[in-house]
Amino acid sequence: MVKVIVVGGVAGGMSAATRLRRMEEHAEIVVLERGPHVSYANCGLPYHVGGVIPERADLLLQTPESLRARFRLDVRVRHEVLGIDRGARTVRIRDLDTGRTYTEDYDHLVLSPGAEPAVPPLPGAERGLTLRDVTDTDRILDAVRAGARSAVVVGGGFIGVELAENLRRRGLAVTLVELADHVLSPLDPEMARPLADELARGGVELRLSAQLHKVLPDTVELADGTVVPADIVVFAIGVRPDTALARAACLEIGPCGGIAVDDQQRTSDPRVFAVGDAAEKRDRLTGDGTLVPLANLANRHGRLVADAIAGRPVRSRPVVGTVIVKVFGLTAAATGWNEKRLRAAGRPHRVVHIHPASHAGYYPGARPLALKLLTDPADERILGAQVVGGEGVDKRIDVLATAITCGLTAPDLADLQLAYAPPFGSAKDPVNMLGYVTDNLAGGTTATVQWHELDQAVHDGSVLVDVRTRAEHEAGGIPGSLHVPVDELRDRLDEIPLDRPTVVYCHAGLRGHTAARILTQHGRNVRNLDGGWLTWQAGRAPQPAW
Amino acid sequence: MVKVIVVGGVAGGMSAATRLRRMEEHAEIVVLERGPHVSYANCGLPYHVGGVIPERADLLLQTPESLRARFRLDVRVRHEVLGIDRGARTVRIRDLDTGRTYTEDYDHLVLSPGAEPAVPPLPGAERGLTLRDVTDTDRILDAVRAGARSAVVVGGGFIGVELAENLRRRGLAVTLVELADHVLSPLDPEMARPLADELARGGVELRLSAQLHKVLPDTVELADGTVVPADIVVFAIGVRPDTALARAACLEIGPCGGIAVDDQQRTSDPRVFAVGDAAEKRDRLTGDGTLVPLANLANRHGRLVADAIAGRPVRSRPVVGTVIVKVFGLTAAATGWNEKRLRAAGRPHRVVHIHPASHAGYYPGARPLALKLLTDPADERILGAQVVGGEGVDKRIDVLATAITCGLTAPDLADLQLAYAPPFGSAKDPVNMLGYVTDNLAGGTTATVQWHELDQAVHDGSVLVDVRTRAEHEAGGIPGSLHVPVDELRDRLDEIPLDRPTVVYCHAGLRGHTAARILTQHGRNVRNLDGGWLTWQAGRAPQPAW
Repeated sequence: MVKVIVVGGVAGGMSAATRLRRMEEHAEIVVLERGPHVSYANCGLPYHVGGVIPERADLLLQTPESLRARFRLDVRVRHEVLGIDRGARTVRIRDLDTGRTYTEDYDHLVLSPGAEPAVPPLPGAERGLTLRDVTDTDRILDAVRAGARSAVVVGGGFIGVELAENLRRRGLAVTLVELADHVLSPLDPEMARPLADELARGGVELRLSAQLHKVLPDTVELADGTVVPADIVVFAIGVRPDTALARAACLEIGPCGGIAVDDQQRTSDPRVFAVGDAAEKRDRLTGDGTLVPLANLANRHGRLVADAIAGRPVRSRPVVGTVIVKVFGLTAAATGWNEKRLRAAGRPHRVVHIHPASHAGYYPGARPLALKLLTDPADERILGAQVVGGEGVDKRIDVLATAITCGLTAPDLADLQLAYAPPFGSAKDPVNMLGYVTDNLAGGTTATVQWHELDQAVHDGSVLVDVRTRAEHEAGGIPGSLHVPVDELRDRLDEIPLDRPTVVYCHAGLRGHTAARILTQHGRNVRNLDGGWLTWQAGRAPQPAW
Repeated sequence: MVKVIVVGGVAGGMSAATRLRRMEEHAEIVVLERGPHVSYANCGLPYHVGGVIPERADLLLQTPESLRARFRLDVRVRHEVLGIDRGARTVRIRDLDTGRTYTEDYDHLVLSPGAEPAVPPLPGAERGLTLRDVTDTDRILDAVRAGARSAVVVGGGFIGVELAENLRRRGLAVTLVELADHVLSPLDPEMARPLADELARGGVELRLSAQLHKVLPDTVELADGTVVPADIVVFAIGVRPDTALARAACLEIGPCGGIAVDDQQRTSDPRVFAVGDAAEKRDRLTGDGTLVPLANLANRHGRLVADAIAGRPVRSRPVVGTVIVKVFGLTAAATGWNEKRLRAAGRPHRVVHIHPASHAGYYPGARPLALKLLTDPADERILGAQVVGGEGVDKRIDVLATAITCGLTAPDLADLQLAYAPPFGSAKDPVNMLGYVTDNLAGGTTATVQWHELDQAVHDGSVLVDVRTRAEHEAGGIPGSLHVPVDELRDRLDEIPLDRPTVVYCHAGLRGHTAARILTQHGRNVRNLDGGWLTWQAGRAPQPAW
């Protein structure tokens, strides 16, 4: 009878164990979990802090007893694996309640130890909390119930932002401290800007480009000397793969510091598999190792390991990396690579920004969306996408993630036959529009200038023309622009010089495109400001200051 | 200077005209529209009937004046094209206001005449209304404002269902009469069932398998003799391509009765293009001609014609056919082929039904979804999909439509990296689950029986085992089933005969799968009831009767 030991009883480990039972009714399957809970709702923890998920019990999806009844799993909580003897195929285990240590042998070992929240080596940091498991949630809630009035969340990533929102919901004065100049690093700065505004509207005090200096008893001090009240301090600055066991067992570690695995999630020891946040993934674009701590990948790979152990011919796919987060009334999502990463890697890329409505504008409730698409100008393959808005964000990012996985080009997006009725979309869906715009760029029908390139264009002698309406122009425009509404352009052509390059702009880029086409065909050398005033403003305006 | 005449100023025609202007600033572009409006919100008409879109003006997205200002289009409303002289390249036109007839020549002609609502040749049918344009909407609203208290909508397709809901919103007693045994023919009957229930909950009196016999002054009479009050009668039994002009000009008509076009939307005359509901499409699965009257295809093809005229190397793609409709608080959507059509065509197909939650169950607001996937058992390519539920329906159908377009297999769905956070989905998204289930079927890990095959299976000697909890079983099950909860199965194996085939079922199919795996590995010949009790009940239970 084959015997499998699984280390870690949450997403990846438990997916492996339950799938393995379905494949191998007669295997012996032991799950060892250091903490007191298995199969808890990891991604729900911030929402229990805020009371959105009111019952703690709702976080606990399974118990050792329910897993024994359904899957005949031998689940041992508060059992820590101390070491692996790969030669003898045994693990050394300590029962944390009794202190007893003992040994179990295995035919296959599955490591799913997860990742540990990073804690900065700063004075006073030891009073800082983190959010990894149900026990951490209890600690934060205990502090809230004990009367905490203020919280500092360090790190404006997904967990930090979710936690800031949920602590606000509990009535605390919340300050979010982020080292970078924008929150949510999977987004580029101009896409993250609306989220900063939304956090501010939600009452979160946002400190961008701010470094934590030290943690004091009731406050924290930032590098610029500011002191911020902080009855609670939570670190959400990222996670590190928990590789202690793997390193001690001399398993190969990948270039990013995760456990190295092949496309069956096998480590350098074929009897040992690794899944979840501790294991390295393979990036779809480069094939290189990467760390992508996402629950769905952990689940997927856990199942895959079970199939591999059962002898099925399975292979894991490279990772696109699709993420989403709710920030009060907005949603932000990203898939693939962002512009920062493409630039840092020196990869050529084409950028498109659009600002369509979430559904037909004439049907009530439509809200603006911002979409950004990054493509390879050599072949127009999609490299990445970002979507921010109030509804329909998840739909568009999922379609775009699917398109990346399938290797679609951006112009192919124009031909996707997406479901349309007025409550759900537009006859030309935002995703189709990304295809149309890229097609125009790729075919040379139009040329654009990016928000961060505009100063240089003007410096180099471009004339800047605002083609919006008079009312829009008077409400505010880009300094130094001529104003000729698109609908008057043909009658006022002589106002646009023939001998200088022109940049046109409108609110979102659509009228600018029409204006650019008119002027181009009247002999001007024209570029359209990509994403219009909206993208320029989001990229250029200072982040909200406090 | 090239001169292009566009016949029909709504979706396809106006997309062609505006795109052509952007491509060809110096072309002469004349748009001839028989009705009084261009570029109106076709798909919004039912919602204006219900007051959801309160302002009639909101339906009118453009006017001839706005189109002249922005695009220098020569738009002539209430101008009817009487005939085409293809040899002379002219069209004969009547100004419906003055009665004047005149001729315009063209270099290229674009036909976008749309489709006409069918009206049955029944006594009294002449008082029946239809819903094609803004004028039709006015007529229905005039009747409502004149005091109509009751309405009969004939035809339970998308427009019929939308209209029934919106007439209820106006307070009318609404009866929906449908010839088939279920509403929304793009869905299969077991998927359409929740929509019938929702219509009933919304107060619509639904008459299925009912034929209209005659229209009387204040009522209609059905074939079974029932008389139904009907101050208003609206026919929504389908549309017919408006091919009168094309036929008179001896342009080739396709096998389905639409204007035949090539993959540049060119008719049998290379100077004449056709787009929109009047033109035939090419089905993605068979390559055959098909009629798919959808606004997004009309828009797409209109733009494509402009590119073709401008000399760009464009090709239209075959049609998947993705549809969606809101029915009170539910949404129904479909893409590709349904099971009825596959059966009628004699194409082998594999069926999967699942009933997951729209997002993580522990996060508030999750609602049940029903998904159906149809695949080719030879290669597991996706042939079609249907999704019904309260939220997240549009997202899943769009991902599935994209998957079909890309030629993904169903098991590939397991590897789609869709965005997950608790408010938006699950770590294993419903689309991933479809992949997992099909993978299990394709690999022989599990076998299923469909809801309509169960009687035969029992007749042939299968033992039926309900593996749900005692409470679920006592609340109602499939007659004649043994009851052994999945968690007790291993301890009560001797109750499951070794010498007879077994069918297991649970609520939605998930526990049934686990039970089937246990029993299979204990020597039984087992199939799981696909989609469980929910699908069986939806397929088997009588439709709501009145």
